[in-house]
Amino acid sequence: MSSHKLCMIPGPIEFHEDVLQAMATPGTSHVGPTFIPVLGESIELLRQILFTSGQPFIIAGSGTLGWDMTACNLIEAGEDVLVCNSGYFGDRFGECLETYGAKATHLRVPIGESPDLAAVSAALKTKKFKAITITHVDTSTGVLSDIKGIADVVRRESPETLVVVDGVCSVGSEEIRMDAWGIDVVVTASQKALGAPPGLCVMGVSERAIQVFKNRKTPVANYYANWTRWLPIMNAYEARKPSYFATPAVQNIFALHVSLKQIVAQGIEKRFAVHKEASAKAKKFIHDLGLTLVPTSLDHAANGMSAVYYPEGVTATDLLPKLAAHGIVAAGGLHVEIAPKYFRIGHMGISVTEPERGHLDATLNALKASLVECGYKGAL
Amino acid sequence: MSSHKLCMIPGPIEFHEDVLQAMATPGTSHVGPTFIPVLGESIELLRQILFTSGQPFIIAGSGTLGWDMTACNLIEAGEDVLVCNSGYFGDRFGECLETYGAKATHLRVPIGESPDLAAVSAALKTKKFKAITITHVDTSTGVLSDIKGIADVVRRESPETLVVVDGVCSVGSEEIRMDAWGIDVVVTASQKALGAPPGLCVMGVSERAIQVFKNRKTPVANYYANWTRWLPIMNAYEARKPSYFATPAVQNIFALHVSLKQIVAQGIEKRFAVHKEASAKAKKFIHDLGLTLVPTSLDHAANGMSAVYYPEGVTATDLLPKLAAHGIVAAGGLHVEIAPKYFRIGHMGISVTEPERGHLDATLNALKASLVECGYKGAL
Repeated sequence: MSSHKLCMIPGPIEFHEDVLQAMATPGTSHVGPTFIPVLGESIELLRQILFTSGQPFIIAGSGTLGWDMTACNLIEAGEDVLVCNSGYFGDRFGECLETYGAKATHLRVPIGESPDLAAVSAALKTKKFKAITITHVDTSTGVLSDIKGIADVVRRESPETLVVVDGVCSVGSEEIRMDAWGIDVVVTASQKALGAPPGLCVMGVSERAIQVFKNRKTPVANYYANWTRWLPIMNAYEARKPSYFATPAVQNIFALHVSLKQIVAQGIEKRFAVHKEASAKAKKFIHDLGLTLVPTSLDHAANGMSAVYYPEGVTATDLLPKLAAHGIVAAGGLHVEIAPKYFRIGHMGISVTEPERGHLDATLNALKASLVECGYKGAL
Repeated sequence: MSSHKLCMIPGPIEFHEDVLQAMATPGTSHVGPTFIPVLGESIELLRQILFTSGQPFIIAGSGTLGWDMTACNLIEAGEDVLVCNSGYFGDRFGECLETYGAKATHLRVPIGESPDLAAVSAALKTKKFKAITITHVDTSTGVLSDIKGIADVVRRESPETLVVVDGVCSVGSEEIRMDAWGIDVVVTASQKALGAPPGLCVMGVSERAIQVFKNRKTPVANYYANWTRWLPIMNAYEARKPSYFATPAVQNIFALHVSLKQIVAQGIEKRFAVHKEASAKAKKFIHDLGLTLVPTSLDHAANGMSAVYYPEGVTATDLLPKLAAHGIVAAGGLHVEIAPKYFRIGHMGISVTEPERGHLDATLNALKASLVECGYKGAL
């Protein structure tokens, strides 16, 4: 496809040719011997990638469905949840929790800041929280939250509180060690640093959280998202046995399987490192252009994306079409309070693990050229 | 893929090469100009295929998610729903409705029978039903329900009752005319006669049902399946404008779009006719082999699949591996009461609209050969 523009938004990302080839797998029975080991092995690979002995789930749906899965399976009506809110996705996760009867207390931080450990500690003292949610990387701001630090605080202050991480924009690009760090739930999706097309909700759930689910007193108020139905299905596929609840997205799972194998083969530790390196390079380039990141410090800036304020005199309608003309698709702002003031680029997956593809260099060079075309002089 | 066996189960089906090619579309922004018209036009094509001026929805998930969408958006807690139950999927839809607080009354028919219009009429007189659900083709039994006849009865006996059709195994292979027949909801999925890989929940909702949704008194008790969020998204894409709630399954929608265009280009009326012809051919072949269908009459046997009892002395463990050795993947039984006694084959999509592919002939010949290998003499 010569007309293809590089998809350098913070998800969906650019996908490996072998992943795309797997998307084109011919019609295959969801309960047959060709597919069963593919889903079974994908579940096992996710355990390695999330560093957990817990239970992965791979379900047809968007990452958003993982919020419903968390809310309807782990929280019972009337229970309190502390939402560490670092942007758009904290607001939305809170809404989802409240839909299922949870009482959400938002610990909001100013735009560009990350949740403060002392503030989390103080909030945990105010009442008994069933769970705390943290947006690991808020895709709307590019802010990286310190999930290890927060999980530490929770384990110290309120050991029974479940630690839930929205890792939609972090799994595969940011360091996560579920069991070692005491994280109970990671919600993610296929289309970001897991490197497969959108359409799969992917989760990791600690054994402790599965026990909390099994001990709940009230029925789960959702049908499609109900782990009562999905847990036996995931167990069956992992045991290489057919089982049926709802038809899985067979081709998407073939594709995810290819990508998960690539991730493990390349090495997960190395993956964390190359995303950090690529991000540092992108952020230095952005800084040298005289531009300002939305995150107020590099210490809490995501490694898989950059959210950047337009310089004075440049707007979305100026910059984004010029980037597109250079063959680069970037994203506009999403956080409602500052949406027209900033743009976002993704640097995840093959665009950074295979630098010989030149995606990031092409993106940064196109950014510089486009800014010049916009009349920006800044630090050029 | 020389090792590919024909997927002749009642969904997922065999997919067209152009559909599979679209699944391999490179990473593409879900809010960019390449994708927006693809989803927008898919919505428009679904209106044509469902013969409705109502609102289509295309959402990442399995067909099962369409039950949740129906239950949580259209039914309020405590309301009565009449479930025309012709197999496994009636039981499950009933469970889903009850999860959201509906009171499900099951109108059960014996295995292999289809719901009787007089019984529907009588049931409608017993109380006020908010909705009636009908499994158009129960994939577990291959029974075809008379949705036109039932909708007629409902309009006469209880005009305000919403007519909800589970068309997962019928849309694209059985005649459905939503507006002319007075059908309010059709739930389906991508992987059967719509001809695209699994992973998309597809719905058509009448204008009347959308009004019922808009006039509901209680909030929708689901986040991901909530039409309050999805309706503006569908409207935006149809207006060719970007909008975001949850990331759509971009590649799956590219693939669905190709298949929907093929369906409309080939002619919807012709599609109904060729599925009837192929089914008649399959059923005659099965009859001539001395085998018995699960549906008790050809008048209510599905046109997109056949559910067939094993002849005496033949079992699933005999027949299905032999079919596989002949390159044909068929499905075992699913209805819990008779599961080990029958098998199922699908004849939908390109396997019947493009008979030059020889899929159905290959399947029927393999069936005959496999039965002989099983020692079956019957009517051979």
